[in-house]
Amino acid sequence: MAAYYPKPIARLVGEFEKLPGIGPKSAQRLAFHIMRIPEDETRALAEALLAIQGSIRFCSICFNYSEGDVCDICANPRRDQTHLCVVAEPRDLIAMEKTNEYKGVYHVLQGVISPLEGVTPDRLKVKELQARVADGGFKEIILAMNPTVEGDTTAMYLASILKPLGPRVSRIAHGMPVGGDLDYADQATLIQALEWRREV
Amino acid sequence: MAAYYPKPIARLVGEFEKLPGIGPKSAQRLAFHIMRIPEDETRALAEALLAIQGSIRFCSICFNYSEGDVCDICANPRRDQTHLCVVAEPRDLIAMEKTNEYKGVYHVLQGVISPLEGVTPDRLKVKELQARVADGGFKEIILAMNPTVEGDTTAMYLASILKPLGPRVSRIAHGMPVGGDLDYADQATLIQALEWRREV
Repeated sequence: MAAYYPKPIARLVGEFEKLPGIGPKSAQRLAFHIMRIPEDETRALAEALLAIQGSIRFCSICFNYSEGDVCDICANPRRDQTHLCVVAEPRDLIAMEKTNEYKGVYHVLQGVISPLEGVTPDRLKVKELQARVADGGFKEIILAMNPTVEGDTTAMYLASILKPLGPRVSRIAHGMPVGGDLDYADQATLIQALEWRREV
Repeated sequence: MAAYYPKPIARLVGEFEKLPGIGPKSAQRLAFHIMRIPEDETRALAEALLAIQGSIRFCSICFNYSEGDVCDICANPRRDQTHLCVVAEPRDLIAMEKTNEYKGVYHVLQGVISPLEGVTPDRLKVKELQARVADGGFKEIILAMNPTVEGDTTAMYLASILKPLGPRVSRIAHGMPVGGDLDYADQATLIQALEWRREV
């Protein structure tokens, strides 16, 4: 396909195609968009890309992305230091933050246990989580992995090693999404919604 | 939203969001992808972006994107110089090239006539097209604008000014897409398919 473009465009299309969710068609559209915008807008994107490297590290406490040694959430004295929410990825932490409901702190595992992909607990930030919980101070650990096989496995594993350390360990509910329709819900979700039912 | 990210990530998410077809969710996914890939891959993308500027101009003959003064197609002596296909945008030229069917040369208008958006013929490469056709040598001019109101308007306008110059002027067919289903075709397409019917 690249043969249809002048070399610099082919190169940019090729680079865009490497990004997740960008197919050949989108890559072409993006490259042609870049051709049309003013040079300083292109430079802004290129510079934002280059600025990422080196300027971002992992928070030494929760392993979220951070500019400094400790992230803004861990450094915030108004966060409730008795509740710890464990998530798989930084993007899950952001999803939790957007609820504006959770005021505790986080621990980012940087993945989930997945024997098929060779991800065992020692490749995740599990040791660090154990150490934080063992230090005490947490009343509750909220396991907020995705409701998938890997997420559930990870949650079960974490529950088994964290409960003996003392705090209450909970898991975010599985069930019908708000605004969902029973008729369209998949079987697995309905089964979970039944299983997680509670008295009203 | 940006407040949830460290500044360099927020900046990159913001830049990605400016691209067409990239919403806040995709922008976040792309930025987090960039966080995970090796530094040299990020640099390759940034450099491809920067390399576009200055290295690409418009072919002085057909106004397609080109690295040199004349594009590869115009410079190719094996292209049929008696057929001229007029397209609105470089991406339309690529679509035509992918058919591997058309062996003539092109003219890229760089837009279509659109009174609503203030695009009049003098803002397109129409004068240049007229000059090429007036120079003679073309047996047929194929108008390959999109089958839209603007595309049809542009084609009608071009036909009116090019026909007096001598060559045959044709328009790519409107009709049922291959593999399409009458039952699902929109009314306008069916009307066109009827109108463009030919004896078999």
